[in-house]
Amino acid sequence: MLYNEGMEVQIAVSKIKKYATPDSGDTVEVVERPHGGLSVVLADGQSSGKGAKAISNMVVRKVISLLSEGVRDDAAAMAASDYLYTERKGKVSATLNILSVDKQTNTLVITRNNPAPVLLAFNCDIRKLDEDSKPIGSRRDTRPLISEIPLEVGMVAVMYSDGLVHAGKRSGQPMDIPATLEALLDCEDPNPQVIADALLENASRLDQNRPSDDISVVVLKVASLSGDEVRRMTVRLPLD
Amino acid sequence: MLYNEGMEVQIAVSKIKKYATPDSGDTVEVVERPHGGLSVVLADGQSSGKGAKAISNMVVRKVISLLSEGVRDDAAAMAASDYLYTERKGKVSATLNILSVDKQTNTLVITRNNPAPVLLAFNCDIRKLDEDSKPIGSRRDTRPLISEIPLEVGMVAVMYSDGLVHAGKRSGQPMDIPATLEALLDCEDPNPQVIADALLENASRLDQNRPSDDISVVVLKVASLSGDEVRRMTVRLPLD
Repeated sequence: MLYNEGMEVQIAVSKIKKYATPDSGDTVEVVERPHGGLSVVLADGQSSGKGAKAISNMVVRKVISLLSEGVRDDAAAMAASDYLYTERKGKVSATLNILSVDKQTNTLVITRNNPAPVLLAFNCDIRKLDEDSKPIGSRRDTRPLISEIPLEVGMVAVMYSDGLVHAGKRSGQPMDIPATLEALLDCEDPNPQVIADALLENASRLDQNRPSDDISVVVLKVASLSGDEVRRMTVRLPLD
Repeated sequence: MLYNEGMEVQIAVSKIKKYATPDSGDTVEVVERPHGGLSVVLADGQSSGKGAKAISNMVVRKVISLLSEGVRDDAAAMAASDYLYTERKGKVSATLNILSVDKQTNTLVITRNNPAPVLLAFNCDIRKLDEDSKPIGSRRDTRPLISEIPLEVGMVAVMYSDGLVHAGKRSGQPMDIPATLEALLDCEDPNPQVIADALLENASRLDQNRPSDDISVVVLKVASLSGDEVRRMTVRLPLD
């Protein structure tokens, strides 16, 4: 373990929307944690298009607002669930994932309210966090599944919306996401952007480049500190 | 003008903290706008360290929460000012900048509550938005300065905290930021990350690599759509 001895966190998010829809129903935001570290929040609203976007946006807004006030991840997820349940009378659900780097505990905290698994890789060993987990918003007693793992150089976490899970199913060629990730990690030590883009591209190809659902992929990697102490963020937004 | 004909927005944020302080007093967050586009919010709390961080964090949280609900930029800035004034009884100020890509109006909206200018470049022609502007939080009637400019391929906006303005002053070598930017743009068509890093590096060098203040640089560029329709974000966070 290399706690506090020159680690850095690298995150990449790649998103594409369902073919021929105006808006992705997925929302992803990154927020700084007040006690250090950051959180990536991913929500996917039920159905697609404008209605789904409004839901996922509402959920992510609630979660980042709570996290930025220092609220714990599981409490934030439960609050978002109750809020959505109350606002939409239990008729609309959303999946919710949070990936947090907590500098107080030096851990990665993975929060799932999503049937889709989160993958966790140490070098080439891939673990699937896939215990049964329900979306938020349709019941009062929904609870997230939480995994907390010490930060370690070389660890890679991959979380995604169900668009990735369903890619290729229509054409009878479902994607084996862990196998694809393993192949990617095998060849080299790719950066998160390469991993996220490769997974998205693979999925898109299986759907003949007309994605049948919104797809969001988030890849987080813990690496040895390379070079300077500069915090960086880049965003690319195609306008259409 | 190439409205809606294959444009993309590229944003880069580079941040470094004052030498030998645990925390940067600057906060930068990017948030999606509910009607399309995104906003980058930069606040710098008075003084440095933990106190300044708490202030800039409070200000940015308030602004992104309002923007994500669809509130206009100037109203969000005024709300943050009144909120800080009320919370801290007018005793603490903060600078605040918002850089928004508004897809409804196809404009770049620049909001300043900051004596530091925002630079706007079209190819090699650099404009300085430097009308007198006051920080928020110390008076009841503080208003932001707003500039709204049609999105156009080739435009580059650069906003920064006052750490960049003060770089090198202690050693009698203040940085000429517009000239540095001009030199950068002159040579090629650099991407935002290159511009942000070069400005930060230049400033850091003038302070003998011991920055005398927190520095944050945000560079936004409007470019022709290059390649795919994938939205991307990357984050790099050194842990220490």
